Amino acid sequence: MPDNICVAIDAMGGDNAPCEIVKGALLAVNECDKVTVYLVGVTELIEKELTGKSYDRNRVVLIDAKEIIDTAEPPVMAIRKKKDSSLVKGLTMVKEGTCDAFISAGSTGAVLVGGQVLVGRIKGIKRPPLAPLIPTETGVSILIDCGANVDARPEHLIQFAQLGSIYMEYVVGIENPKVAIVNNGAEEEKGNALVKETFPLLKNCPDINFIGSIEARDIPAGIADVIVCEAFVGNVILKLYEGVGATMIKIIKKGMLSTARAKIGALLVKPALKKTLKAFDTEEYGGAPLLGLNGLVVKTHGSAKAIEIKNAVLQCVQFTEQEVGKKIQERLFS
Amino acid sequence: MPDNICVAIDAMGGDNAPCEIVKGALLAVNECDKVTVYLVGVTELIEKELTGKSYDRNRVVLIDAKEIIDTAEPPVMAIRKKKDSSLVKGLTMVKEGTCDAFISAGSTGAVLVGGQVLVGRIKGIKRPPLAPLIPTETGVSILIDCGANVDARPEHLIQFAQLGSIYMEYVVGIENPKVAIVNNGAEEEKGNALVKETFPLLKNCPDINFIGSIEARDIPAGIADVIVCEAFVGNVILKLYEGVGATMIKIIKKGMLSTARAKIGALLVKPALKKTLKAFDTEEYGGAPLLGLNGLVVKTHGSAKAIEIKNAVLQCVQFTEQEVGKKIQERLFS
Repeated sequence: MPDNICVAIDAMGGDNAPCEIVKGALLAVNECDKVTVYLVGVTELIEKELTGKSYDRNRVVLIDAKEIIDTAEPPVMAIRKKKDSSLVKGLTMVKEGTCDAFISAGSTGAVLVGGQVLVGRIKGIKRPPLAPLIPTETGVSILIDCGANVDARPEHLIQFAQLGSIYMEYVVGIENPKVAIVNNGAEEEKGNALVKETFPLLKNCPDINFIGSIEARDIPAGIADVIVCEAFVGNVILKLYEGVGATMIKIIKKGMLSTARAKIGALLVKPALKKTLKAFDTEEYGGAPLLGLNGLVVKTHGSAKAIEIKNAVLQCVQFTEQEVGKKIQERLFS
Repeated sequence: MPDNICVAIDAMGGDNAPCEIVKGALLAVNECDKVTVYLVGVTELIEKELTGKSYDRNRVVLIDAKEIIDTAEPPVMAIRKKKDSSLVKGLTMVKEGTCDAFISAGSTGAVLVGGQVLVGRIKGIKRPPLAPLIPTETGVSILIDCGANVDARPEHLIQFAQLGSIYMEYVVGIENPKVAIVNNGAEEEKGNALVKETFPLLKNCPDINFIGSIEARDIPAGIADVIVCEAFVGNVILKLYEGVGATMIKIIKKGMLSTARAKIGALLVKPALKKTLKAFDTEEYGGAPLLGLNGLVVKTHGSAKAIEIKNAVLQCVQFTEQEVGKKIQERLFS
């Protein structure tokens, strides 16, 4: 088990960079003594954020990168041209083995393209999936795939099921994780062409615990640990999860402020409510791993705050300690 | 404008039949003096529910049907064999012109199959969509299609956009309704093969107000009135909408009961909260119309209570008064 884990962090990516990114990195360093963080970005700006903070200086390394990749830039072009960007430099450190993992809150497209092009796929992985952890009533599930490559084929979905199972087992710590495929009904004859073709293959896949179809209604209840779907559907699920959650909270706040009586009640209810709602907040889970690469790449929300960055770093530590990359190779290709 | 609107209701369909179905029908009769309801089902059971209730006896007609179609039955077979079922009899009344519309809380599959086979499509309609109304922050949107026929083609989606626009304009009363297609990003180059092929066709469709792509995150905010998608995706959206909503409410209740202080607050907050949450309840909107048929067929939730049935009846009244079937023919095929 490696005792010094190196995580490169894109200090310039996301809406709250570099302030929250640096803050999150330091939280991780202070919480976990096995990790060294490499803060990649404009050194002067990062140093400013570090001033006056207390942390182990031996485990925070600054890597200068002068360019920044914008979320609006076409990903392929950006990766090719901006060699001195925090994203390209950080990913290259994983490729070269200087770091075990890379985290970015920047452009999803650039992270996906850069992860595949610069870090590279594990041999035999057809399509590396982006797999966010989503909160449920009972804990957390992995939603796999939510990446940019839509219109997947059955053989991709089989690998998603396998990769998701390994991740949930070794990183999240769920024994024999339950795998389900997103479908428009629970009966076996339901489904679109892709699901109908994939279902029997999942059923016959020996190294996963396949429990059948899951209707979208049952995802928040947490009845499966690994939710397999094609990326277009995954994207709809992920975004709607966040959208309905945000709207519900807005509506509830409106209700609580609608009468004088309710306002008083709201004050009393607030602390307890905040605590339970926090458990249902996607930001608590530290971003989405891009799986099947020669190293771990994690994409956090663009709006990630320090807590999400810290959790992403801890996720990278767990991933590396458990040697998940090696386990993927063994389980899928030997 | 027709001054007597006849609505057939499947009194035996759904979890709460016949009690809530009959109750809802009477609520509608008492609220709207233009409507006559035909309660189709086992007469003795319906009569029992009518006993002691006050309503205009001239506008409540009982139609005896001895058979009941179960939700577990294969739809095509059930429709073919159970000629004396409430579903087949009710749909036949629409086909024959005795009734303008039919409502059922029973088997979705049987309603979809029966609607197409017995009532029949308007000439030129390729695939009648099932289109539930979903609550948003600003009101209500139509989600089209959520039916049983997945893997639609672009020409289907164009008709969905047109049918949804007409429905929102004449039944819900939204002028020049905004149409958007569900996509995995807001940019025009995003999408799976179906969306990429459909997008330019929607853009060039002269009789709709197309505003582009919508990410699932923005659906609950109500930025579009007509949400166009293929039925597999529509099903995921609809079910997840309900699932996340239900889980959020469960979590909030748990939070409110977690401390003594919160419990007192909950009592004060409850009435106001109930009122605002009601506006976000899918049951308030009276079920999903199956559009493009020679008459209106409405599928309500299996768990529909009286209020949903009443709203479904009022929806049928509006649909018939506004002569929406005729408008569909004029707008799409002349």
